[in-house]
Amino acid sequence: MALEKRYKIKVEENKIITDDHFIINGNKAYAGQHIIIDFWYTNFDNKISSLRKIIKKAVMLSNATLINLKLHRFGEEQGISGVAVLAESHISVHTWPERDYIAFDIFMCGNTNPEIATKYLISSLNPKEKFIKTIKRGEHKIDK
Amino acid sequence: MALEKRYKIKVEENKIITDDHFIINGNKAYAGQHIIIDFWYTNFDNKISSLRKIIKKAVMLSNATLINLKLHRFGEEQGISGVAVLAESHISVHTWPERDYIAFDIFMCGNTNPEIATKYLISSLNPKEKFIKTIKRGEHKIDK
Repeated sequence: MALEKRYKIKVEENKIITDDHFIINGNKAYAGQHIIIDFWYTNFDNKISSLRKIIKKAVMLSNATLINLKLHRFGEEQGISGVAVLAESHISVHTWPERDYIAFDIFMCGNTNPEIATKYLISSLNPKEKFIKTIKRGEHKIDK
Repeated sequence: MALEKRYKIKVEENKIITDDHFIINGNKAYAGQHIIIDFWYTNFDNKISSLRKIIKKAVMLSNATLINLKLHRFGEEQGISGVAVLAESHISVHTWPERDYIAFDIFMCGNTNPEIATKYLISSLNPKEKFIKTIKRGEHKIDK
């Protein structure tokens, strides 16, 4: 709860997490939140080691479980691509250093908080411009 | 072009692919298309080997380059999660067999056609219900 306060996240009250990590809230169920993130003009130093550290901390803060994190640079002075596989889905990242552009997506199910990961990425990378869109994956109405 | 016709994809005329895989069309530039896909009630047999085959073919048909494909089952009779890392970004998949729900996302840059991959997934998995949303990642206006 302390992190929700610190990052000013609206807490979804009364949500129930099912055994298969679906989220039930009232008469709606969904698999998880998928957050699409575009950052422009960040303070990223273009090092794989920095990005690894940032993603690991984002996973930890959002209460997710990291299974595997692979980051790959395509060639000298080129961008980095990678994916963190989580027990609760994934985080992907693709960077374009020549454009000062970074594309993340964060998909998290179960008892996690991907909004905290998002806020942490913003505070670490400090983009001058950003575009963020959240999609509730697999959302549908259910009978109570 | 034959595949675009077969899958009834609208071809984006006059687009230019830059050296760093950005797409320029008129006075707009973007990194690539990110397609968010929810499938319900498919004919998927819940086998890793089938999913591997389907994803590999989707990558091939869309003219992307597969770097690495990892699929992982969380436990007996449980869902499969995985990511295909592409030279042009990624495809992720998460399945919930107990709900007959599959979540894909396809992010492809450069000279690829993720819409063909999407159509191929639909034709292979034949979902009774689906939700598909396309986001142009990193889209911004440019001076011509």
